Amino acid sequence: MRLRELAARLCVAFEGDGARELDGVATLAKAGPRQLSFFANRRYRGQLSGSAAGAVVLAPADRELFPGAVLLSDNPYLTFARAAAVLHPAPPPAPGIHPQASVHAQARLGEGVRIEAGAVIEAGARLGARVVIGAGSYVGEDVVIGDDSRLSPRVTLLAGTRLGARCLIHPGAVLGADGFGLANDRGVWVKVPQLGRVVVGDDVEIGANTTIDRGALDDTVIGNGVKLDNLIQVAHGVRIGDHTAIAACVGISGSTVIGRHCVIGGGVGFVGHLDICDGVTITGMSMVAQSITRPGVYSGIPAEEARRWRRNIGRFHQLDELARRLQRLERSPKDDPDD
Amino acid sequence: MRLRELAARLCVAFEGDGARELDGVATLAKAGPRQLSFFANRRYRGQLSGSAAGAVVLAPADRELFPGAVLLSDNPYLTFARAAAVLHPAPPPAPGIHPQASVHAQARLGEGVRIEAGAVIEAGARLGARVVIGAGSYVGEDVVIGDDSRLSPRVTLLAGTRLGARCLIHPGAVLGADGFGLANDRGVWVKVPQLGRVVVGDDVEIGANTTIDRGALDDTVIGNGVKLDNLIQVAHGVRIGDHTAIAACVGISGSTVIGRHCVIGGGVGFVGHLDICDGVTITGMSMVAQSITRPGVYSGIPAEEARRWRRNIGRFHQLDELARRLQRLERSPKDDPDD
Amino acid sequence: MRLRELAARLCVAFEGDGARELDGVATLAKAGPRQLSFFANRRYRGQLSGSAAGAVVLAPADRELFPGAVLLSDNPYLTFARAAAVLHPAPPPAPGIHPQASVHAQARLGEGVRIEAGAVIEAGARLGARVVIGAGSYVGEDVVIGDDSRLSPRVTLLAGTRLGARCLIHPGAVLGADGFGLANDRGVWVKVPQLGRVVVGDDVEIGANTTIDRGALDDTVIGNGVKLDNLIQVAHGVRIGDHTAIAACVGISGSTVIGRHCVIGGGVGFVGHLDICDGVTITGMSMVAQSITRPGVYSGIPAEEARRWRRNIGRFHQLDELARRLQRLERSPKDDPDD
Repeated sequence: MRLRELAARLCVAFEGDGARELDGVATLAKAGPRQLSFFANRRYRGQLSGSAAGAVVLAPADRELFPGAVLLSDNPYLTFARAAAVLHPAPPPAPGIHPQASVHAQARLGEGVRIEAGAVIEAGARLGARVVIGAGSYVGEDVVIGDDSRLSPRVTLLAGTRLGARCLIHPGAVLGADGFGLANDRGVWVKVPQLGRVVVGDDVEIGANTTIDRGALDDTVIGNGVKLDNLIQVAHGVRIGDHTAIAACVGISGSTVIGRHCVIGGGVGFVGHLDICDGVTITGMSMVAQSITRPGVYSGIPAEEARRWRRNIGRFHQLDELARRLQRLERSPKDDPDD
Repeated sequence: MRLRELAARLCVAFEGDGARELDGVATLAKAGPRQLSFFANRRYRGQLSGSAAGAVVLAPADRELFPGAVLLSDNPYLTFARAAAVLHPAPPPAPGIHPQASVHAQARLGEGVRIEAGAVIEAGARLGARVVIGAGSYVGEDVVIGDDSRLSPRVTLLAGTRLGARCLIHPGAVLGADGFGLANDRGVWVKVPQLGRVVVGDDVEIGANTTIDRGALDDTVIGNGVKLDNLIQVAHGVRIGDHTAIAACVGISGSTVIGRHCVIGGGVGFVGHLDICDGVTITGMSMVAQSITRPGVYSGIPAEEARRWRRNIGRFHQLDELARRLQRLERSPKDDPDD
Repeated sequence: MRLRELAARLCVAFEGDGARELDGVATLAKAGPRQLSFFANRRYRGQLSGSAAGAVVLAPADRELFPGAVLLSDNPYLTFARAAAVLHPAPPPAPGIHPQASVHAQARLGEGVRIEAGAVIEAGARLGARVVIGAGSYVGEDVVIGDDSRLSPRVTLLAGTRLGARCLIHPGAVLGADGFGLANDRGVWVKVPQLGRVVVGDDVEIGANTTIDRGALDDTVIGNGVKLDNLIQVAHGVRIGDHTAIAACVGISGSTVIGRHCVIGGGVGFVGHLDICDGVTITGMSMVAQSITRPGVYSGIPAEEARRWRRNIGRFHQLDELARRLQRLERSPKDDPDD
């Protein structure tokens, strides 16, 4: 595709040779003359000037840093993401039901559905148009999946789970397993029946081996546009607001509510029954032990405002020295009139 | 079911209209006149008084907080768990072997076994009565499964694993993979054969995507009544005592022994070769780096008695301020006779 | 096998009755007269002297601690690992394609390949000689697997993944899922196409339910001889150097590069875009927030040299006491001339 066509398609301006042919994307370091790259992080400035890329997406303010053809964007990473989708279109999966899939007679399949080998669809499941069920995936009783959603191979959606449209679920993800509900009878744990569902909105992506438990009584709810990375645990009754993104290895305990437009770093843990308001960022490996009522950036164990955490953790690294200084003061002659 | 019948079934007293019909359970906020709810946490007191629930399980001391019909119990959550099981009975799964399952001729199946589509049962496996093997699950050679145990879809039990009676294993759980045993030969890792098994007691529940490795030499042992949440790692040679409950995302390193009736919070990590006595509670995201010989509550990184941890972590949040105060003392005129 | 034959096979010296028959390995506590054990950790000294083992592998310096037959080795654990492999040989899996497997006509299979029930092999996949694909495993389009590599049951290798020779992948592992690449368009997340692959070297072991994402642009690369435990997250664009071993529950954020011969403890988290040099050891549950340029042992949150971390964390446990001492100094009469 020519640079000028790509620019028009993405609704951005270009500078340089508009007839230049581009057929793919690559990093600044590896891109060749038929590849598009991007510059969004000043630390790669050295790579930019020497890049052999056919064109680079960058912000107007950085225009002078690259002599070649450019696409100009106030959000170069976003424009690059869209360009990559244009230059590397994923072929639509061919519809059809593999003979080695198992589809219950009482499942309802929309038009253009694709069901791969070894997939199992149970009674009462309803699949929208163009849904893809990857090899070996399991779609339990009465599961509902919206149009254009895709399960990768080996995904599990247990009975009653609802998935919106245009979702993408990666291998090993498990939606709808029982929550960890236990009552104690003189030392012996008694299972509390888990009667809620998992309800997922539209445009949600769920990472490999992430687990989302069904609610105990109320549903576990994942809002529209939520993005979950790999190996995340979402316990029963959790609610995650629209357009919140959560990195890998996060654990969210039961009934905690996370607002909209939050960004949660990797390895963060949430205590149960918390309320996190909209617009909160939590940095990686923090432990969130209290509700958060003001948007902002939070860090630490337990989490506090990131600014305070940075100051305190900085002092932590001087702790041995601080303790020695304290000792010195205590022992100083002025502190002991008998000396 | 009428309230009076339910009370009789659960062996608890009721007050109010014993003829009231109940057909399900719900939260205080959502329950309607045909639903049972429960009150076990004083912070939901506001919801209790206004609840439209047909009846509420509560402690005798809280009787006056709700004007309607009640079930009285010293352990309302336990009574509620039992009531939920009565009001929402899970229909017994229909026995039978799905034509798309693969069952080895030398596997032995008890009466009433159910094997779903895509499940694989290898030679020498022995399944007790009424065992359910979910779709796509794998039961390796010589695996033994006790009566009434159920594997959800996509569970893996590798060769030699033993599971007791009435166990419930959630999707993606892996029992019997090789432990992480490595010897170093001048920089190159040499695999140490993992020759033990995973041996699981009766009434055990294992969460989604949890992994329990086989022992290197001795078995990895999970006691009776143990409850494991999702995404837990149990390394080779670990032993977990009866009726211990472990929340999600916990990692237990090799050969560590955890006692009976312990409660481990989410995200806790255990160093290897530790001995944790019976009756220990560890709060979430702690790192247990030493053996624990006294029952009690432990917290922190590394874990110490929770009381001490709370005091120290409280001071941590003042650390920057403490450091400034120390500086002030050091600089105060009295500290410097030359001033 | 006789002790003298075993010694010859392992190229180590023996002492005692060379005709003694050994048919297995066991721990010092459990070994009987036909079993070999090993002694590599002085804390098991008490068990050594009383062991009924037919022979024990130990270091020459420990020779006098055990009266019976011994194999002498400067690296007893390594010699034991090799002996265990000799005494417990794993029978080679029988080749063949199970009738309930699904193998695409355009997949190429080497000689002696074994494909178990429910496995799915897509078009363009190329399997080397004697490769084993476990029950229910998924091998995507154009995946390449080297000779003698084995997938356990329920492994997922998504399109384009490359695996070297003699690799072992445990159940639930997912290689090649999309990385977590998102651009933000005024609050809404837009997916960044993930166009790289996962490329794995020779002699790599990957644990159960571990996830390795494909690169966004460049590949995610796992070097030769790397050993990954269970439930590890390897994000897009990560590179792990040859012969590095990583324990369970570790999370490595995008584009971080870990050197060769590193040892990473359980539960460690790495921020993205870091550079960790060769020969680094990180102790368990540390958070690595900065690049490391010198070999050594690192610990803590965030990680620093282990020696410093130990001193600081030691002081942390005195923090409440330190704060009280500071208070006392501040209040001491000498500090307040008005008193």
